[in-house]
Amino acid sequence: MNRILAQLQPSEIKNLSLREREVLCEELRETIISTVSSCGGHLSSNLGVVELTVGLFTVFNFPDDKIVWDVGHQCYAYKLLSGRYKRFHTLRKKDGISGFPKRQESVFDSYNTGHAGNSVSAAIGLKKACELTGNPANVIAVIGDGSFNNGLIYEALNSLPIFNSKILIVLNDNNMSISPTVGATHELLSKSQEDNQKNIALIEQYGVQYMGNVNGNDLQEVTNALQEAKEKLQTSSVLLHIKTKKGAGYGFCEENPMQTHGVAPENAKQEQEYSKLLGEKMIELAQKDSSVVAVTAAMTDALGLREFFNRFPERSFDVGICEENAAVLCAGMAGGGLKPYYAIYSTFLQRAFDEIIHDICAQDLPVTFCIDRGGLSGSDGETHQGVFDLSYLSLIPNMTVAVPKDGEELKQMLELSLDYAHPLAIRYPRSAKHYFASQTKPEVGTFEYLTQKTNSPVTLLACGERAIAMAFSVRERTNVHFDIVNARYVKPLDSALLSAITSKHIVTLEDNASIGGLGSQINKFYQNSGKTVQNYAYADTFIPQGGIEELQREYGLNEREIADYILSL
Amino acid sequence: MNRILAQLQPSEIKNLSLREREVLCEELRETIISTVSSCGGHLSSNLGVVELTVGLFTVFNFPDDKIVWDVGHQCYAYKLLSGRYKRFHTLRKKDGISGFPKRQESVFDSYNTGHAGNSVSAAIGLKKACELTGNPANVIAVIGDGSFNNGLIYEALNSLPIFNSKILIVLNDNNMSISPTVGATHELLSKSQEDNQKNIALIEQYGVQYMGNVNGNDLQEVTNALQEAKEKLQTSSVLLHIKTKKGAGYGFCEENPMQTHGVAPENAKQEQEYSKLLGEKMIELAQKDSSVVAVTAAMTDALGLREFFNRFPERSFDVGICEENAAVLCAGMAGGGLKPYYAIYSTFLQRAFDEIIHDICAQDLPVTFCIDRGGLSGSDGETHQGVFDLSYLSLIPNMTVAVPKDGEELKQMLELSLDYAHPLAIRYPRSAKHYFASQTKPEVGTFEYLTQKTNSPVTLLACGERAIAMAFSVRERTNVHFDIVNARYVKPLDSALLSAITSKHIVTLEDNASIGGLGSQINKFYQNSGKTVQNYAYADTFIPQGGIEELQREYGLNEREIADYILSL
Repeated sequence: MNRILAQLQPSEIKNLSLREREVLCEELRETIISTVSSCGGHLSSNLGVVELTVGLFTVFNFPDDKIVWDVGHQCYAYKLLSGRYKRFHTLRKKDGISGFPKRQESVFDSYNTGHAGNSVSAAIGLKKACELTGNPANVIAVIGDGSFNNGLIYEALNSLPIFNSKILIVLNDNNMSISPTVGATHELLSKSQEDNQKNIALIEQYGVQYMGNVNGNDLQEVTNALQEAKEKLQTSSVLLHIKTKKGAGYGFCEENPMQTHGVAPENAKQEQEYSKLLGEKMIELAQKDSSVVAVTAAMTDALGLREFFNRFPERSFDVGICEENAAVLCAGMAGGGLKPYYAIYSTFLQRAFDEIIHDICAQDLPVTFCIDRGGLSGSDGETHQGVFDLSYLSLIPNMTVAVPKDGEELKQMLELSLDYAHPLAIRYPRSAKHYFASQTKPEVGTFEYLTQKTNSPVTLLACGERAIAMAFSVRERTNVHFDIVNARYVKPLDSALLSAITSKHIVTLEDNASIGGLGSQINKFYQNSGKTVQNYAYADTFIPQGGIEELQREYGLNEREIADYILSL
Repeated sequence: MNRILAQLQPSEIKNLSLREREVLCEELRETIISTVSSCGGHLSSNLGVVELTVGLFTVFNFPDDKIVWDVGHQCYAYKLLSGRYKRFHTLRKKDGISGFPKRQESVFDSYNTGHAGNSVSAAIGLKKACELTGNPANVIAVIGDGSFNNGLIYEALNSLPIFNSKILIVLNDNNMSISPTVGATHELLSKSQEDNQKNIALIEQYGVQYMGNVNGNDLQEVTNALQEAKEKLQTSSVLLHIKTKKGAGYGFCEENPMQTHGVAPENAKQEQEYSKLLGEKMIELAQKDSSVVAVTAAMTDALGLREFFNRFPERSFDVGICEENAAVLCAGMAGGGLKPYYAIYSTFLQRAFDEIIHDICAQDLPVTFCIDRGGLSGSDGETHQGVFDLSYLSLIPNMTVAVPKDGEELKQMLELSLDYAHPLAIRYPRSAKHYFASQTKPEVGTFEYLTQKTNSPVTLLACGERAIAMAFSVRERTNVHFDIVNARYVKPLDSALLSAITSKHIVTLEDNASIGGLGSQINKFYQNSGKTVQNYAYADTFIPQGGIEELQREYGLNEREIADYILSL
């Protein structure tokens, strides 16, 4: 098996016959399916670009030529063809092959990606560097139609005449981002079969030659088109519009592209997810209050809101991969008297930082952020670890930052949010595994004791399910009956409760970076108080892929270390 | 004088004759010119939209109808016509009329703005809120052609079919943002006189009716066009493309639109500006190192780089108001071996937060940010106070955050940046007023004593010119000879110097918000050390307009308070 792929040098691909390259595509597809089955990962998007990738290696010379994969999770075939076949079984594992391009992994990876829409800007920048250093390399950006909605793409196209650099943009149009692609740009592109003139006009306004559209799953056709595009690059930048089928060549994926976009390893346990609880509670809120609206940026299913969208279509808005736009739309709706809930993954919200500051918090508008994948997210690696949110949200005036201790508390916080007239961020991880008995409602700015209050010499302040679970583990391991407090608001703090703590030693524990989160706020609170404060949070570094628990241990939330510290007191 | 304007109720405008409205335009223009001469402010952009504003009041019913001014600094005529004539002499002064729309100031202001490109999203959101609450109000976004380059606009246009809300977009095309508008979109729009079909196609792809282009400085013509647009709104959203002259009606402004975009009060002293020093030093660096390139986002002159752009056109890139794109272009160029310098105002950089994290810092690329208007910026108010940068930059792994103590140190830091192989942010205020003698070069992560080291019981750590100047003032006022340290890197700290401090009492002082800046880092450093640490920084609130010194006093950098604290020790 994999007779061709197993032996192949990248430079040899262009010497293979068409038939051999077709077999190579089959081998790539099989390898991707079997690896993703065991390691998890992105499936259907990778299957869609197998022929494109073989075509690229046939026509271009990597790593001399450079490629930027937008978002980056469709790079598996590229990795398999660029010397990483033997290590590919380590995909998404700690110290293994990344599911995204990584410069540190291979010279074939020219640019690291993870979020959407930056590929064209990055390609222009790389090409300009080549020009100014006398390097004749071709530079290619491969971008899906979902990413093509992102405003960054238009900014990049708009700057092409300024840079006057000739790049190849391959628009991989599979009619899907993670959810089906939405909006005007998509409408335009999908009509292209009938009305290619419109596409041409749209693209050529930027001084870019349009080629399309081409069947991207026909190896011969896509290879020929790439060859032609390469020649056209002599004159100007080129946009090659290819149509592919997400999940191509694997019937189950073709029929279920949304469900097979990201796939968990076969042996992964199914746990309760916060997203499910969000979806249920949001329906309840919308029934109760007609001003409730929900906004997502191409992630409706993953965030648990599909049923909400089905039940309240007139109050549901998936704006595509446009995180900034979504934030401003929420501000506008809130300014007009509605109650918007913006559900999003933690790292994607980074895109809307300025809009959170200006449009939402400076106007003190009642927008509620439902932030999923807060804290470590694991095997997607650096670009998807949601460890900065407590820090960058807490520094914004007027923002309230809530971290529910479990799924039940998420629901209670959502209930309270209905009458809360200010910006509110509720942040939680993917899986809800625990339940912690609670006596109090999570009113804004209140903490609560999770253990019988003993006035022990040590009080541990923990926020979020993972940190609280670890606090209990440490308590068990050490057999020291210190007090555990659910520090469920990073902002504002519960100053009454904090002031009443008599313990000499305070420990903070959070599933967040060490700069700017709960620990920083608590340090400031107890400044000059005579108490000692010890912070446990993630090291100031980009945390790579791995299992949540192994990453916790290595990057700053080490249960044994915390236990040893407490025993040392 | 101002016989009409002085008495006018907003609702009466539509009853005036054309001749009276023409006189009104003259009165508005005179009032704007005289007020800006004494208060400072945005001049030419406001003069350009006088007729448009009178036309809007003639055709629409404010405040029932709602308007969003993109960026917002062109709202003076609107404010004068909506009940703020009598208070207009307080423009940009503390507790006075804001130079930007402010909901808290008037019910006529529907949405606060300050940065570019969010107006269309905000208008869609407001309109959706009206629809869902049964309010038939019209919603209008007014946006300049400079802002029209911003990617947010395309995201908003793309989401129009999703929201299916009918709004009026007035595209105020004056061929300028702050600098001349650049890029492909601009090329397209400015050709419109000859080739209107292209404009129509560009806009109608979004399901929006195009009307244009209209002479926006002809009162009758623009009023008629607004009337027609209002009728067309029954069917779909409308983009009304008007051409105006920035500075219209005031010869000096028409001829010098760039110089009169923002105007200082007539009695303002001319001080040395950091931007001038940046420009000079950047030319030196570019002469020395051919890999140096400079990137700006529509602010080349204000940032001091015009001469650099003239001397090195092939290494200079003004990408228009596209802060994210600029960041990714820098990352691409750095990834390809160049040495990019991205010069930008502090608050505008907030737009590129995710790209700083992903594209630049996660890839650890040597991009240098030259961040002007760091700290309070004064009379522009909430949206322009650069008080969050030290906080949001410090929380990003791999980022170095430098704050020069004076212009000389800015130059030294720039010199050092040439060989620095990592992301580096250098942040400074507008005016360079002081010079502090220095013995050491600002090597990354080094602080220095600015006073003879005395091992006094108090050491004051200050970063940036304003904080250091205040530290010296406090020293003089108290006559306590405490040690003053130039804490010129917020990240990384100089741990050797900090560890060697023998003072029992540490005071931090910074021209930044209190959450997440120098103070937070120092608190953490001295945690459990037995030292007391007292932080002086700005309160956790949006700081309104006012003079720098009065705002410092009121919002947390109060010299007398610091002196009293030190005397109390």
